Amino acid sequence: MAEYHGLSQIFTTTETSLYNNLFKSPNPPFHSPTALILEISPNPFPQTNHSSTTNFVPIIKNNYNFDNLEILDHELETYRSKFNGHGHDNSNNCNVYVAGHVLVYPSYNGFFEKPGLFLDQMFVRKCYRGMKFGKLLFSVVAMQAEKMGMGMVDWLVADWNEETINFYEKMGAHYIPEYRLCKLYGDQLQAFGRKSD
Amino acid sequence: MAEYHGLSQIFTTTETSLYNNLFKSPNPPFHSPTALILEISPNPFPQTNHSSTTNFVPIIKNNYNFDNLEILDHELETYRSKFNGHGHDNSNNCNVYVAGHVLVYPSYNGFFEKPGLFLDQMFVRKCYRGMKFGKLLFSVVAMQAEKMGMGMVDWLVADWNEETINFYEKMGAHYIPEYRLCKLYGDQLQAFGRKSD
Repeated sequence: MAEYHGLSQIFTTTETSLYNNLFKSPNPPFHSPTALILEISPNPFPQTNHSSTTNFVPIIKNNYNFDNLEILDHELETYRSKFNGHGHDNSNNCNVYVAGHVLVYPSYNGFFEKPGLFLDQMFVRKCYRGMKFGKLLFSVVAMQAEKMGMGMVDWLVADWNEETINFYEKMGAHYIPEYRLCKLYGDQLQAFGRKSD
Repeated sequence: MAEYHGLSQIFTTTETSLYNNLFKSPNPPFHSPTALILEISPNPFPQTNHSSTTNFVPIIKNNYNFDNLEILDHELETYRSKFNGHGHDNSNNCNVYVAGHVLVYPSYNGFFEKPGLFLDQMFVRKCYRGMKFGKLLFSVVAMQAEKMGMGMVDWLVADWNEETINFYEKMGAHYIPEYRLCKLYGDQLQAFGRKSD
């Protein structure tokens, strides 16, 4: 995804950093950075009983046909899921595969009455595109924001990505071209730590 | 500030919503939406002993001269602070006034190893401009991010606001014009709550 956006030079994510940033928070899902994983399987997913401490129940859709997964997805083994909906499964026999993800965290805008969810990443693996999974992931985030009584979902889009902008606008989003991103990081950020005034 | 940005039509903030969003979180400062208030006074600020449960110590600067505040600030009474650095002061005798603020919340970017602080608002009241308070507020946010071991500070800027863009670039920030804001809110967001698929 960083390659696709031409941002490999800033990419410093590691397995450890993902673990620390996404899986170590004491907060419930959506109250700190949270990854939603899109998983597919040739078998039906079981209905799961989730503990009442989480405020998210996995959404299961059975209107797809993945009987010929090996033909569709040439990296199947790489993306085999280690979770089977009931927790961690080390057996490697789990017939579930990762097809995409979305990354969100709570956001706030001083002009709005209610807080929101910032959508940092939305990604569907190439071989699973054209199946409306993007729309599904986006809907899940919007529905979750609504469910939590939030007032907005916000995110950034690259101005050259017209297809994606159209997609968002069709979903009801407002595209606000005036607002551009600024980022302070690396040496320039560290310099502030050394300043005394 | 919403007027200045031409965003009065989306402004739904109320005193209650500010209280709920900024002052009711069980999290320590900077782990949820947090307002930093810029206060000025003709009297020296006392050094404060802050409880160890907060990770922020107010920054005191004594290199200003505010002997003629009434001449400088015609809305002095409106902006009289109800806090005196030691907590709430209902006596209304507090010789401290609000000159500006900055609003931040924790952010995360999937490409970065470390999380960050998103700077949602930075505002200095008109009569206090040209005194480098903007630079001071920005520095405080950057220093705080560094202190917390974060990897970035990010924010948005309006593309017509060249003066501000130059200001940020001089401070070491990267301006990334490709990234534009999208926002889903109001009726369009609520429609997702009614969808079943």
